[in-house]
Amino acid sequence: MASYVAPVRDIRFALDAIADLPKLLSLPAFAHVDSPTVDDLLREYGRFCEEVFAPLNRSGDLMTSTHDPVSGVVTTAPGFVDAYKQYLDAGWNAVPFDPDHGGGGFPWVINLAMQEMMNSANLGFALGPLLTQGAIDALTHLGTEEQQETYLRKMVSGEWTGTMNLTEPQAGSDVGALTAKAVPADDGTWRIFGQKIFITYGEHDMTSNIVHLVLARTPGGPAGTKGISLFIVPKFLLDDDGNPGVANDVRCVSIEHKLGIKASPTCVMAYGDTGEGAVGYLLGQEFQGMRGMFIMMNNARLSVGVQGLSIAERAYQDAAQYALERVQGRPIGGQLGDTIIGHPDVRRMLLTMRSQIEAVRGVTYLNANLLDVAKHDSDADVRQNAQELADILTPISKGWGTDLGVEIASLAVQVYGGMGFIEETGVAQHYRDARILPIYEGTNGIQALDLVGRKLGLRGGAAFAQMLDSVEASAAELASADLGQMADGLSCAVGSIRKTATAIGTSEQVAVMSGATAFLRAVSNTVGGWMMARQALAARAALAAGDDSDGYYQAKLVTAQFFYEQILVTVDGLCQQTLAGSEAVMALRPDQFASR
Amino acid sequence: MASYVAPVRDIRFALDAIADLPKLLSLPAFAHVDSPTVDDLLREYGRFCEEVFAPLNRSGDLMTSTHDPVSGVVTTAPGFVDAYKQYLDAGWNAVPFDPDHGGGGFPWVINLAMQEMMNSANLGFALGPLLTQGAIDALTHLGTEEQQETYLRKMVSGEWTGTMNLTEPQAGSDVGALTAKAVPADDGTWRIFGQKIFITYGEHDMTSNIVHLVLARTPGGPAGTKGISLFIVPKFLLDDDGNPGVANDVRCVSIEHKLGIKASPTCVMAYGDTGEGAVGYLLGQEFQGMRGMFIMMNNARLSVGVQGLSIAERAYQDAAQYALERVQGRPIGGQLGDTIIGHPDVRRMLLTMRSQIEAVRGVTYLNANLLDVAKHDSDADVRQNAQELADILTPISKGWGTDLGVEIASLAVQVYGGMGFIEETGVAQHYRDARILPIYEGTNGIQALDLVGRKLGLRGGAAFAQMLDSVEASAAELASADLGQMADGLSCAVGSIRKTATAIGTSEQVAVMSGATAFLRAVSNTVGGWMMARQALAARAALAAGDDSDGYYQAKLVTAQFFYEQILVTVDGLCQQTLAGSEAVMALRPDQFASR
Repeated sequence: MASYVAPVRDIRFALDAIADLPKLLSLPAFAHVDSPTVDDLLREYGRFCEEVFAPLNRSGDLMTSTHDPVSGVVTTAPGFVDAYKQYLDAGWNAVPFDPDHGGGGFPWVINLAMQEMMNSANLGFALGPLLTQGAIDALTHLGTEEQQETYLRKMVSGEWTGTMNLTEPQAGSDVGALTAKAVPADDGTWRIFGQKIFITYGEHDMTSNIVHLVLARTPGGPAGTKGISLFIVPKFLLDDDGNPGVANDVRCVSIEHKLGIKASPTCVMAYGDTGEGAVGYLLGQEFQGMRGMFIMMNNARLSVGVQGLSIAERAYQDAAQYALERVQGRPIGGQLGDTIIGHPDVRRMLLTMRSQIEAVRGVTYLNANLLDVAKHDSDADVRQNAQELADILTPISKGWGTDLGVEIASLAVQVYGGMGFIEETGVAQHYRDARILPIYEGTNGIQALDLVGRKLGLRGGAAFAQMLDSVEASAAELASADLGQMADGLSCAVGSIRKTATAIGTSEQVAVMSGATAFLRAVSNTVGGWMMARQALAARAALAAGDDSDGYYQAKLVTAQFFYEQILVTVDGLCQQTLAGSEAVMALRPDQFASR
Repeated sequence: MASYVAPVRDIRFALDAIADLPKLLSLPAFAHVDSPTVDDLLREYGRFCEEVFAPLNRSGDLMTSTHDPVSGVVTTAPGFVDAYKQYLDAGWNAVPFDPDHGGGGFPWVINLAMQEMMNSANLGFALGPLLTQGAIDALTHLGTEEQQETYLRKMVSGEWTGTMNLTEPQAGSDVGALTAKAVPADDGTWRIFGQKIFITYGEHDMTSNIVHLVLARTPGGPAGTKGISLFIVPKFLLDDDGNPGVANDVRCVSIEHKLGIKASPTCVMAYGDTGEGAVGYLLGQEFQGMRGMFIMMNNARLSVGVQGLSIAERAYQDAAQYALERVQGRPIGGQLGDTIIGHPDVRRMLLTMRSQIEAVRGVTYLNANLLDVAKHDSDADVRQNAQELADILTPISKGWGTDLGVEIASLAVQVYGGMGFIEETGVAQHYRDARILPIYEGTNGIQALDLVGRKLGLRGGAAFAQMLDSVEASAAELASADLGQMADGLSCAVGSIRKTATAIGTSEQVAVMSGATAFLRAVSNTVGGWMMARQALAARAALAAGDDSDGYYQAKLVTAQFFYEQILVTVDGLCQQTLAGSEAVMALRPDQFASR
């Protein structure tokens, strides 16, 4: 197993050339952040991830979190408590948050880049801070001043972690089916009763308190999603000084035995099991629970897309390293003793991984940049346009990023051959870890429905069309930069997407739903082509401007070319799949799906 | 987790409608096999797989085989010894083999159908009998009369198992790099020295002896593959009555900790570790080792393709069952409380699985049927044509079947959502088990090279063209059967394949190798379309002929339609990928693949 090397140069390249960081940093909100600071931060955090988190990745998979059913205590894998302490002490958790709550006020896109490295180094660890960020977002948007004072500073610093408690056995994708109850108490607080499942880091030993955000129903509310409210439920109730005191009536009943991300405890949480009820504080208004959930979710969806990128990057590094060392067969035109990097099919696999990694990095970073612009730009139109494009990109970041996480981890196993199937080499862990990503924070089927059902129709379809105009503008730039073949490929893909989007507009709902997943991939590959166009243009400019002795920019042109030749060419077929209609999909009775 | 239900009706449908069993049974070699016998056998063996093998699948994954490093003894998972005994006692192992050695003389294609069910029920178990079949094949083709007398009968019955010992740490895909030695002894036997890895069921407790077939180098032989010979090395040397006696100098040093197929012991085998050398008997002529290997391999490649089919079928059954039971969200036009089978995207996933399963079943069964014809038909031309088409189909069966095994197991996890990531539900095991299939018995990259490098050029390309003619004949039949849209789709795909094959003929070798994997998939999808055409035609005929009260034949038309709309339409894009050339693939220096 290769040790993780933070790809800081690639990250910086994507931030500058694809996600337009320079323009972002010119906004007044980021006056305190300059380009060299970003470089230093990325380099230092990259080193931290390499040295502190990465060495615990395989041991965390082997030794996992453990749960004591008597006490309910969860003990994280060896080394995790210490790694968390180092992370906390160094102040890394606070970087992107509001300075008013002790944060560093950095752009969200920089945080995404940091997330990329943390996830690559150790996905099982990274989930703790990631869930905390979602909870911070919800508290920032919905919390009263007092709630923010009480919880935010300690969560921003990382002294306490946060969780998202949505899922119940009968309520997963269908949140509206949840039944956890919140009963008002005399003192204005609430008592929470119910069981939640799949609660990531719902219990652990790394911090002195855990702030659970819990969706529950209040008495007499409407059925479905409209009757749901969001509550703050700390693991330990706070004493008068704001420090953790008496234990709340919340308990981790068990943790799951999972395919992957085994270091991360996935908890079944029981609220109010003693009969008293867990003390909870309403966050936002009653019945505003779904709003709170979407705040946490939207944040989380983009971050999960980055997890796909992260696993893909780590898997690529392992595979490339193996291919550079493994001697097997003589490559055409090579010498006996040459490594398998000389075999065209091995190169094909590595470039399939790498070109798509670069494209997904571009999409997710652009997506985050747009969130920054939408929040901080002075011009309302710019803000709105940015928010709309970010909204369109979110299901792409999540759906495409995580599907590719699985596909690329699988390719990495293939590059390893038989050794990839042996757990000791470590590459199989990526294949296992990655598999949750297309599922959680909204399955990729739901992402596809989000794209066709909500995002395609934003501003009557004008927002989506505007994105395609931007892609075509990049195609025109390619043509001017003597990259005519790429220009043609991109224009052709955009044309297919336009036609398909128009056809979707006049199709029946069930037909649209039947083709949604194919359409998500078609749009993703096209947007990926857009990102690779930006990359190729930036590489061309850099090559014209100066020296490229290590071939860095030449390689960026090569991966862009490969993406166009091998990935972008699938758009037409995907558009045909999209428009195939619902006849075959809906033709069978349910019982016909059962064993024949 | 759904229990396994042997899909006997689908298997019989594929045998009859796609793989043309009725014609095969008319050959004199199979005069003793009639259609009702086949039905009975499939039904009874299906039940045996359901009742004996399937219940041990998850427990075998959990409890695995274990190895005692002191004694070298491997203990299989609980229940395996007893299951093997039942399998042996019922005589199942002997069904396809030569009656001269105690076999049942059934067609190989029937054996493939039996393999499908055994693999679906318990892949970790099935590997033992499967490797034995390969060893039987090598002994049948290469063994002296005495060797056959000594070993074959007991291997045919299953009283002893067999292994294939090819791989060494430095010699995987590149068999020619192996270094195991064979030294002649005074009595005409040999002494074997060396270490072999990845030896499936190299040691176990289910039989009284194990017959290892071992590749090694004799003194003074040429380097590379030409200097390799094949040896019979029994675990226990036989006494004068032919019964296992003194232990040979062979030992299982360790077993691997693997991602999947954990019930199956994957052994590191040491030959001659005591210094004496393991007693071996030359099988075939000296330096004929590669021939023996290819006999075992060709047999095994088709069987591994079937393993892909098997895992896909089992994963599909689990996913379909889950979708029929899981309530989540209200499907469009459905009721509250309806299960997720009503959601178009869930149906899309299930049909993606099922339509491709049916197509792969068709390909692998046809492939096996052709092997029977090539062996038993009275007409030499028919035999040759059958052998050539079987040779073309083998990399498709192996490469496509196993890639789909992985993809379909992954889709099954997705249908389960969060529950799929929890090991208790059992579906994650398929995802883990499947991952070895694209790797062993020739990686799928090697299958792709086999297709473009060897099979495409058979008889100057005429054999491949002849296959495409057959596909077009099916397209014409579709048109006559009022399935014009399918006819057009299939003709169009064949046209793309023809053009691409021609272009490959005039391309440089490195360019061909760069596009080989895409071409394998393009051809596979087209051949899959051919199989689904046969299926649709048979279903049409059945519908015209009689009653379809359970919608069985209607469903066969639906999956065929879905395959054409969602799978066949990708052929054009894949052909473009195939012909993209080697420029981007070969442009980077090796060091440019390393971390950036």
